[in-house]
Order: sequence, then structure tokens, then C-alpha cells
Amino acid sequence: MTQATHPQLRSTAATFTGLKCKECGAEYEPKAIHVCELCFGPLEVAYDYNALRRMVSRESIQAGPHSIWRYRPFLPVETDQPIDVGTGLTPLVQAHRLARRLGLKKLWIKNDAVNMPTLSFKDRVVSVALTRARELGFSTVSCASTGNLANSTAAIAAHAGLDCCVFIPSDLEAGKVLGTLIYSPTVMAVHGNYDQVNRLCSEVANTHGWGFVNINLRPYYSEGSKTLGYEVAEQLGWQLPDHIVAPLASGSLFTKIYKGFQEFIQVGLVEDKPVRFSGAQAEGCSPIAQAYREGRDFIVPVKPNTIAKSIAIGNPADGVYAVEIAQKTNGSIESVTDAEIIEGIKLLAETEGIFTETAGGTTIAVLKKLVEAGKIDPEETTVAYITGNGLKTQEAIQGYIGEPLTIEPKLDSFERALERSRMLDRLEWQQVLV
Amino acid sequence: MTQATHPQLRSTAATFTGLKCKECGAEYEPKAIHVCELCFGPLEVAYDYNALRRMVSRESIQAGPHSIWRYRPFLPVETDQPIDVGTGLTPLVQAHRLARRLGLKKLWIKNDAVNMPTLSFKDRVVSVALTRARELGFSTVSCASTGNLANSTAAIAAHAGLDCCVFIPSDLEAGKVLGTLIYSPTVMAVHGNYDQVNRLCSEVANTHGWGFVNINLRPYYSEGSKTLGYEVAEQLGWQLPDHIVAPLASGSLFTKIYKGFQEFIQVGLVEDKPVRFSGAQAEGCSPIAQAYREGRDFIVPVKPNTIAKSIAIGNPADGVYAVEIAQKTNGSIESVTDAEIIEGIKLLAETEGIFTETAGGTTIAVLKKLVEAGKIDPEETTVAYITGNGLKTQEAIQGYIGEPLTIEPKLDSFERALERSRMLDRLEWQQVLV
Repeated sequence: MTQATHPQLRSTAATFTGLKCKECGAEYEPKAIHVCELCFGPLEVAYDYNALRRMVSRESIQAGPHSIWRYRPFLPVETDQPIDVGTGLTPLVQAHRLARRLGLKKLWIKNDAVNMPTLSFKDRVVSVALTRARELGFSTVSCASTGNLANSTAAIAAHAGLDCCVFIPSDLEAGKVLGTLIYSPTVMAVHGNYDQVNRLCSEVANTHGWGFVNINLRPYYSEGSKTLGYEVAEQLGWQLPDHIVAPLASGSLFTKIYKGFQEFIQVGLVEDKPVRFSGAQAEGCSPIAQAYREGRDFIVPVKPNTIAKSIAIGNPADGVYAVEIAQKTNGSIESVTDAEIIEGIKLLAETEGIFTETAGGTTIAVLKKLVEAGKIDPEETTVAYITGNGLKTQEAIQGYIGEPLTIEPKLDSFERALERSRMLDRLEWQQVLV
Repeated sequence: MTQATHPQLRSTAATFTGLKCKECGAEYEPKAIHVCELCFGPLEVAYDYNALRRMVSRESIQAGPHSIWRYRPFLPVETDQPIDVGTGLTPLVQAHRLARRLGLKKLWIKNDAVNMPTLSFKDRVVSVALTRARELGFSTVSCASTGNLANSTAAIAAHAGLDCCVFIPSDLEAGKVLGTLIYSPTVMAVHGNYDQVNRLCSEVANTHGWGFVNINLRPYYSEGSKTLGYEVAEQLGWQLPDHIVAPLASGSLFTKIYKGFQEFIQVGLVEDKPVRFSGAQAEGCSPIAQAYREGRDFIVPVKPNTIAKSIAIGNPADGVYAVEIAQKTNGSIESVTDAEIIEGIKLLAETEGIFTETAGGTTIAVLKKLVEAGKIDPEETTVAYITGNGLKTQEAIQGYIGEPLTIEPKLDSFERALERSRMLDRLEWQQVLV
């Protein structure tokens, strides 16, 4: 165990006690394992919350770095030199204009479309996973990815000087492929969907000595998402919101935001209060929404067919836990069509100047749908989680956002174009009014 | 980010006294004007530095918001409710791996590739310009842009609820066009280069009552770039670097980083010391580098022809001032080819996990060239300014970053591909060694 130098970080190791099966409670050493040998349940990191309660305070957190590492005692790493590339503490924006458009009063956007370094929430989980991978002695890191995770793993591995091999479905958006290749990892494009990529990676993890961030390092990796809960609590002035809306892919993000809130309550950083959890899926891949709708406690896998590729997981590992949380918090899980997703992307951009990818469009479209269905109270403090950047999924909106007016570099050419555009605007308004 | 009412921000109006001609010193009221009526010189914002010295301290700045607005007394706005979307305070990353590759010891990257909200340094200048535009009563804002400025103006105008019309050359990168359209401004794509777009906009500014951020609001707008100087000084622990390398388009960024350092010295926030200023241009548009090389005190305009479109300004407004600063600080101005720019983008990505656009590739390529020419001392604390994100100029590197290895979702298909890729790596190494 390395010797910490930062006073509030010194005895962190004591707070992170090992791995524990989420199903049967069996305990394990904190190694690169993710499945319970007894019941095949998923393993999760366990902490000593009494030690945490004594160790951390609002002040000790605020005195930390402007990144996820200010919450380091809550994260499963031992080192006091984590890989810190400025990840986290993304803006929590009060969305006045979007709120007005939707008929809400207290709407906030947690904007991970500008997370560092690769513009998605995945930078959080990868920062934690690669820090832990280094501690566990891995020199090659890997992942099964729908795109954002590949970007993040390749970038942060480059920064940390780790070898990297990533696996993606072969039909990903160009921006996500190029946004991985640029960092010079080995990239395996698999003929198949994410679930097939994931199965292949499980086999590779067993045969090569690689650290797969979302397979054998998954217990550590997934803890990174708790910071999306911590940050919202801190940024709201150390209190919890009334309602959150987040996208559902594997379901992990959702469950970890929940865990983050619960931990802050448990160690006394925020007051206990009910928070409703609502989840968003694309209709073309909505196994969790279907299970929720039908009141099932199991997931029926589906074959994805949606533009929201980053959340297109047909067999979501944490789906049942997501359903459970939505049910017990009096939240909801909804799905929306690809057309609604595109409208969601445009709506957020026009009202708040935030350009998100398809997953974010899904969240905004579901937010709208829930408001219209009366499932979000206008008075509730609601936080919508935007998890990725629109520059990576340009294909999805091409053809739906209009074209520039092409003009000559002459004043009269400009004046004519402006007149035309104003006429078109008027026509559109008349059509709206008719 | 919340629009906080920080106590130290209240009486700023006293420090910002008006506009002053950079050439003849004539003084003007702080209105939407940018050219001296007497000598046609550019107007610049003037401050009362004695008042500033009394008002600000390291502590008062550190207690401010985590954005450019912590430096608000140094910015030309009166309101204590500026448009704050989390712009600025981007990471200053110590670039160990890039430094090692180049043979430097103390290299830092100021990473505006992840600036908020639209991933370029332009968010700084636009946040200031639109805040001032609102104060001056404009309801429509506009700009002449090579792409990043259009993204930023459209996004921040959307957030602030201002009408927006942007002008771009018609041959811009797809990501920059789409990254503007998404916010629903009026977009005029002009058949011509940036200099023609700019001339047209000057005419429009005279005939319509619009606030052009980089024309009639230019004195306010350009001050936003000073924050790139302030932040580096603060992030280095309240001291100045020995050497900075920054891209040159109009030359404004360069001169304002210089002004930022000088102001911090003048009000006693940092100690005075020499800082060398080196500038980077693309060979296909290098009027400032040419003037520097030939020791001229005037710019000969050129017709741009380079992949580095965001810095392709053939007739740079602040070119002569940039030459002057490079000369008097014992810096340098260099240009690099498009091929070197692509290598610069790849080098930064591979070593530091930072994916920059062509302008950033230009900066890294020039940095390399200056080191090789012995113009940067390995012992100097050197800061390279990365000003934009690579996801916006994907065309530039397509075809230069390899392809994924396509495989079937089967272990043996993966193993064969891995073996092939390792063989290729070995071959490459052998070629390097031969």
C-alpha cells in the first residue's frame, strides 16, 4: 500500500475494504474479479462508512482538486497519485429557457457533454478504472465499447502511458471511431452488436492478462459514476434534488447515482430525503423500459435498432437494479423514438446552447414525455443528466437541422438571403398558427 | 454554472474607464465602436489600474467562480450577472510524455480543446462580448467566423436568448457548420475566404443595428483572451512561465495573453519577469511569420490555402502587434506545412491523450520545430496553448490515422488480428531501426 501524503487522503485504504457480492454478500479481496464464485452475482466495492464519516466533511471535499478526485475517499483506489486529467466537476446549469419551454420551474442540466478529456461521462469511470489498473499491475488496458468508452480509455491510457486495445461494434459513428484511433491504440472493430462484442471481450479477458475496464475491473470502474451523484449534491449547495432523469444503457450509471446519494446521506454530508429516479431509453433498444412497463423482475434481451448507439445495450447487466430503483423511488422508465431523440437534441441546443449526442437527446425527449404525462411535478427540483457530446454523433442529425443560406460576398446578396429567411420564418409561424 | 453574486465583483465599473486608440491615444466612450475616428487605429479598453490594484488580490480571485468571471474586474463589463456558462479555467496539464518526446523538461499544455460550452478558446471572447452586447442593448448578435467563433456565438446566444446571425466561408469543415446550425441561428455561408466574409460583415455592421462580436464589439470581445494569460499565471502558482507558444490567426489572442501577463504584473498579482512569446502559423497562410522573418513592420496580405482553416486569416488585424511582441520578448514566429500539422495533432494525442484541431496541430508542430532549432531551452517553463477540439476538423486527419482491424465476434478471429497487428508493429520498428 502506498503512503499517502495529503492529510485527508491518508487513511483512505481503511474506507475501501474489499469486494462484496451484490446478491449473496460473499466477500472477496479487491483484485481484478467481477463475478461471485458462489452465486455468479456481480461484485461491488465495499467501504467502511464509519471511517468515511469521521474522515470527510464538506470542507475537506471543497479543499480538494477541481475534479472527481475531490471525492477520492469514496473511490476504490489506494494511491494518492490518481490519474487526474481534470475529469468531472462539469457544470450544473440552471436551464431557465428549457424549463420555460417544458413548463417546469426548477430544471438543471448536469452537463457531461463537456467532461474532460473526451467529452462524455465515461471519463469518470475510466479515470477510476485505469488508476486501479495501474495499482493492480496491468500494463495493457482494454474495453468493450459503444464508442464513448473507447474514446476515453484510449485517451487516458495515452496520457498515463499504458498500452491499450479497444473493441467496438464495426458500425459505430465515424466521430467515435476516429476519436479513438487518434490516440493510437489497437482498435478491433467487431462484426456484431455491442452484446456480441462484450461476450468476445469476456473470453479475451480470461485468456490474456489485460485489464478490461468494464469486465474484470468493472467493480472499480462503475464506482466512478457515483461522482455524478456527489457533484449534483455539492453543486446544489449540499442538498439532493427531488427528481433525476438519466439515460439507461447497462443501467450501471443509474444505480451508481443512487448509491452516490445514499452514501452522502449515510456519512452525513446531506440530509436524507426522497429522490425520484426516472430512466430514459431509445425505443429501438428498451429492454429495461419494457421490464419496468410490464412489472417484470427480469430483463428479456433485445436486438438493438436505434440511432442512440451509445446506449444500445440489448442485454443490460444492471437492468434489473435500475427497474428496482425506479419502482422504489416512485420514478419512471420511459422510451422514445429516434425522431423524438433528434427533437430532443435540437430542443436542448436551441434553448440552452448545449449540443449533446443521441443519448442526451433520449434523456431530454423522455424528460419532455414525463412532464407531458404529469409524471414530473413543475415544482420539483429536477436534474437531467447529459452524458455525451453531439460532435461525436453528427450522422444522427444530418438532414434534420437545415442548411446555411449560401450567398456571395456582397451586401445585396446578403440582404436578399436575409429577406428570404425572414419570409420562411414567417411562413413557418403561419403554419404553426394554422 | 450558477450566476453567483460574488461580493468582490460589485464595484468593477470603476476600473473600466472607456476606449482608447492603440495608435494615437484618443479616448472614447465605451460604446459599440472599434475604430479611431481620428487615425483609424484600433480601439482598446482602458482600465484604472490603481483602482484594480486596490480591489483585487489572489484571494479575491480564488474566491470567485470556477470560470473566466473570477477575473471580472479585468474584463470590460459592468453587470455583476455576466453570462456564465462555465467558460474558462480549463486544465493546465503538465505534459510529461510529450516533453520527453521533444526533449523538454517543463512543458505545460493549456487545454482549451475542452473549453465550455463549445470546445474552443472562442467561448472566452464570446462570453465577454455577449455580456457587453446585452449591456449595450443589442438584441441580435453576429460574427464573421472561421468556424469556432460561429459555434460559440450561436451556442451562447441560444443560452442567453439573443437572436443570432453568423457569417462563415462556404468551404468550412462539416463539424463546424453542423456545430453552428444545431443552435438554430441564421447561418450565412459566403462564397469566399474569411477576409471576404469579414469585409462583408463590416458593411452589414454599418447598415443593421447588430452587435458583431468581432467587429463593432471587438474591443470588448478581444479582452476575453486575456483570461488565457491570467489562468496560466494562477495555475502555475501565481507566477509567469518563461516561454509561451500560441497560434496566430488575427494575432489578437497573442497580444491579449501578453496584455494579461502585463496587467497581472502591474497590479502586483505576479512578479515581473521576462516571458518569451512565440507564434505559430500554417505555411499556407503565414503573413505574420513572413513579416517576422523579413523584419517588416507591416503585413502583406496573402490568400489562404491550408487545412488549418480556423487560423487562415490572410489579412490579420493584429499581425503587426504580434510581430512586435515576438521581437521585443526574444521569441519567434514560425510556420509549418499541412503534413507537419497532422503530425502535430497525432503527436499530442498519442502522448497526452488530447485531441486537438488543426490550429492545435500547428502549435505543437511549431513547438517541435522551435525545440529542434534550439529556440526553446529545455529548462524553460514552456506553455503551449491548445485552442480547439479535434472533433471539429475530422476531415483533416481522415486517412492519416490508420483503420480499425475488422474481426468476427470469435476468439480465433481476434487472435489472428492481434498477431497481424503485432507483426506490423515489429515491421514498423525494424524499418525505424534500419
